[in-house]
Amino acid sequence: MKKDQKKLTARSENEPKWYQELMLRADLADYSPVRGCMVIKPYGYRIWELLKENLDKKIKNMDVKNAYFPLFIPYTFLEKEADHVEGFAPEVATVTHAGGKKLEEKLAVRPTSETIIYSMFAQWIESYRDLPYKINQWANIVRWEKRTLPFIRTSEFLWQEGHTLHANKDKATEQVIEALEVYEKTLKEVFSLYGIPGKKTEAEKFAGGEYTYTIETMMKNGKALQTCTSHLLSHSFVKSFDVEFLDENGKHQTPWATSWGLSTRSIGGLILAHGDDLGLVLPPNAAPTQIIIIPISKGEDTKFKKVIKEKIMKQLSNYRVEIDWSDNTPGWKFAQSEMRGIPIRLEIGPRELENQEISYFIRYNSEKGKIKFNELNSWIKDKLKEIGKGIYENHKKFTEDNIIEVDNYEDFKKAIKQEKGFVKGYFNPENKEAEAEIKADTHASTRCMPLKNVEQKGDSFYNDEKGNVTLFSKAY
Amino acid sequence: MKKDQKKLTARSENEPKWYQELMLRADLADYSPVRGCMVIKPYGYRIWELLKENLDKKIKNMDVKNAYFPLFIPYTFLEKEADHVEGFAPEVATVTHAGGKKLEEKLAVRPTSETIIYSMFAQWIESYRDLPYKINQWANIVRWEKRTLPFIRTSEFLWQEGHTLHANKDKATEQVIEALEVYEKTLKEVFSLYGIPGKKTEAEKFAGGEYTYTIETMMKNGKALQTCTSHLLSHSFVKSFDVEFLDENGKHQTPWATSWGLSTRSIGGLILAHGDDLGLVLPPNAAPTQIIIIPISKGEDTKFKKVIKEKIMKQLSNYRVEIDWSDNTPGWKFAQSEMRGIPIRLEIGPRELENQEISYFIRYNSEKGKIKFNELNSWIKDKLKEIGKGIYENHKKFTEDNIIEVDNYEDFKKAIKQEKGFVKGYFNPENKEAEAEIKADTHASTRCMPLKNVEQKGDSFYNDEKGNVTLFSKAY
Repeated sequence: MKKDQKKLTARSENEPKWYQELMLRADLADYSPVRGCMVIKPYGYRIWELLKENLDKKIKNMDVKNAYFPLFIPYTFLEKEADHVEGFAPEVATVTHAGGKKLEEKLAVRPTSETIIYSMFAQWIESYRDLPYKINQWANIVRWEKRTLPFIRTSEFLWQEGHTLHANKDKATEQVIEALEVYEKTLKEVFSLYGIPGKKTEAEKFAGGEYTYTIETMMKNGKALQTCTSHLLSHSFVKSFDVEFLDENGKHQTPWATSWGLSTRSIGGLILAHGDDLGLVLPPNAAPTQIIIIPISKGEDTKFKKVIKEKIMKQLSNYRVEIDWSDNTPGWKFAQSEMRGIPIRLEIGPRELENQEISYFIRYNSEKGKIKFNELNSWIKDKLKEIGKGIYENHKKFTEDNIIEVDNYEDFKKAIKQEKGFVKGYFNPENKEAEAEIKADTHASTRCMPLKNVEQKGDSFYNDEKGNVTLFSKAY
Repeated sequence: MKKDQKKLTARSENEPKWYQELMLRADLADYSPVRGCMVIKPYGYRIWELLKENLDKKIKNMDVKNAYFPLFIPYTFLEKEADHVEGFAPEVATVTHAGGKKLEEKLAVRPTSETIIYSMFAQWIESYRDLPYKINQWANIVRWEKRTLPFIRTSEFLWQEGHTLHANKDKATEQVIEALEVYEKTLKEVFSLYGIPGKKTEAEKFAGGEYTYTIETMMKNGKALQTCTSHLLSHSFVKSFDVEFLDENGKHQTPWATSWGLSTRSIGGLILAHGDDLGLVLPPNAAPTQIIIIPISKGEDTKFKKVIKEKIMKQLSNYRVEIDWSDNTPGWKFAQSEMRGIPIRLEIGPRELENQEISYFIRYNSEKGKIKFNELNSWIKDKLKEIGKGIYENHKKFTEDNIIEVDNYEDFKKAIKQEKGFVKGYFNPENKEAEAEIKADTHASTRCMPLKNVEQKGDSFYNDEKGNVTLFSKAY
């Protein structure tokens, strides 16, 4: 790889440059020759695999089965649901020629798969015995974006999309919540991300659904990132594609539908929520390498290799461990391991060897110390847990500390201008015009109405309407 | 699901109908509204996941790292390698519009990813220290096919594609062989498929490579299925995309390249190699459900549930087990479990309960018997291994028994006409014209030159040339 020996630009100095440099140097992603499409490099892809493994297990535990639907969707299918086509048409890529011929009907490259999936559901679902019917697919998605940023917003991205049908609305609602809870757990367990689960306003909900739940996470720069969504679709697609079932009494009924998705975008959240001047900060469950060992062997490689193999590696067999034997300087190796966000660095030099101990450095809080060889195993186990929890707690505290409450528009504008986090106030979620005005005025958008405040009503900070507790922020 | 109560059409009666019915009824796949694209249904997708898990581990063990490259490839990239564009252009789907606008340059939906990957390699590879560089991606691929058949040949399919660069040709050659061996092992371990590893002729090799290795498997109807390929690309793409490295002496060198892939097509091989009149025959490692328990409880569900939970399920916690409590008749449940190819069926009725034993039925060889509850655990473990091995040995014997050797064209034609398997004879692999003549005449194509006969030369069965041992067959 082209190793750039210069120091990584500090985040506090120039965040966009930091992000861009980090992509390439930490082997996360690269720009591709196709506008807006990224290459996910091995280190970045491994993070996705780790998230996917965890989430896939949870999805299977919800009795959801994985399947795979075509990449291409007849364009007319999108048009069957009016809100849906209006929402997605501006971003769709279309295939017009294939196999050397012009196609009779142009094909959309899936911007999401509701339409093609419901056309199949219509053939598969017959009676109440078939419900609930729960499908998930891991797939690539194309939405032609104007401004792109690796992971955060790219014309092609990877995701999973769950699609379920239920006999009644209550069961569908439960599924929407259950999916959201699964996301919340996964983001916490793997990415140590704290997020605020909430409901989207009318203006921000999924094109074609009844309502949308989201988890909004706060980045270190105060901006919001939507990490996932879970939609109650109710009857929109179901009716457009004539999905019906016979109930216990032999009567035709319309099933209730949900869909929910989480994408590679969440990796952008991981980077921007935890990253610092030195680079990535990865929680152990998201780290391709959890522990890096840096021998400072001063020419005695053979001796060090033997000790590392016999005294250290044997205790670390359950973890993702790397040993850096390259001929770079220790200083460069340290900087490199910090930039890559490796949770624990173990250093071993002649003095450590003599004392049968190892020096350690914890990436997220810069803690340093020494551990005896024979205590390593149990220490590592506890430490990795502690790190994952510590990063999460920091992120939770940061988020909670940076929510500013307002009750009038002047304060709102001031708060947004500070760019320190989310701004909270009562707002009418049905008023799309007011939302558009605020956005034009301040560049802030509604993020969500937190679920924990769902019953709370009050006077809007913006006009003389009543409203719900709503979070606003500039957002990715 | 729409349950078709009629018996599955027997394979021996009408194979195409059997295949088509099996797709839907065993929940393997379905036809989609987009011509030539299939939906992979949950049971079929789970088989793919099981294969993928096994293969992905082996790929990682070769020090290959997963990554992800864009779905879209600038069309001009395909044109940079003359043989490549000639080979793939007739099958390419192209995106001409995106985001509401006509694109300045049309984009190919990847028919394979060499070109986009090499354009990135050119930026990433600098010195001999970066080699070998080994990447793999799990992705969807589009090749617009004229005649399609679920799994076997579809306009979109799923695969993995490995792409590696090496400092010299020997290392690249080793990689080509290693990948082929990994495929052979995976197909054996997971799908119990016996295959013949060999080299493709000039006419059948990958468009743009130096040579191609394949594993050819024999279906029950005597046809061949290519289950995977491994290519020595050498310098073709590398030079088209200016990939270079500095060697130890600071000299510019051209790296040697390989690529290798295995796709959802292999599932078609699994179905057609082992399937019989009653439906699928799945080896335990490919089976979404390894063991099905059918209680014949005659109204005493509670009693049976307790015994099954306490005496049986506790011993089966390491396996994929299903219990059929549906209100269908035992006869229908038996037929259903056979159609789905479930390796072991356990039946428990009042008499079994009394005797503290369970009746079993082995799908692939129809073996029946009884096992005491307390012997179940160790019996199952051995039995599953035995089944996987048994299916493989049957397939190996079937393949070996159905290779007919010929030394003249008359015998060749007779043998091909019988449609019993592969036909083996000496043939000049460079003579594309002769190969085309034979194909036009008999519909048989060259499958491969078996690696174990690679040194053997003799007089061609077709003309007065010298040739290599070559297998021919009608093929999917």
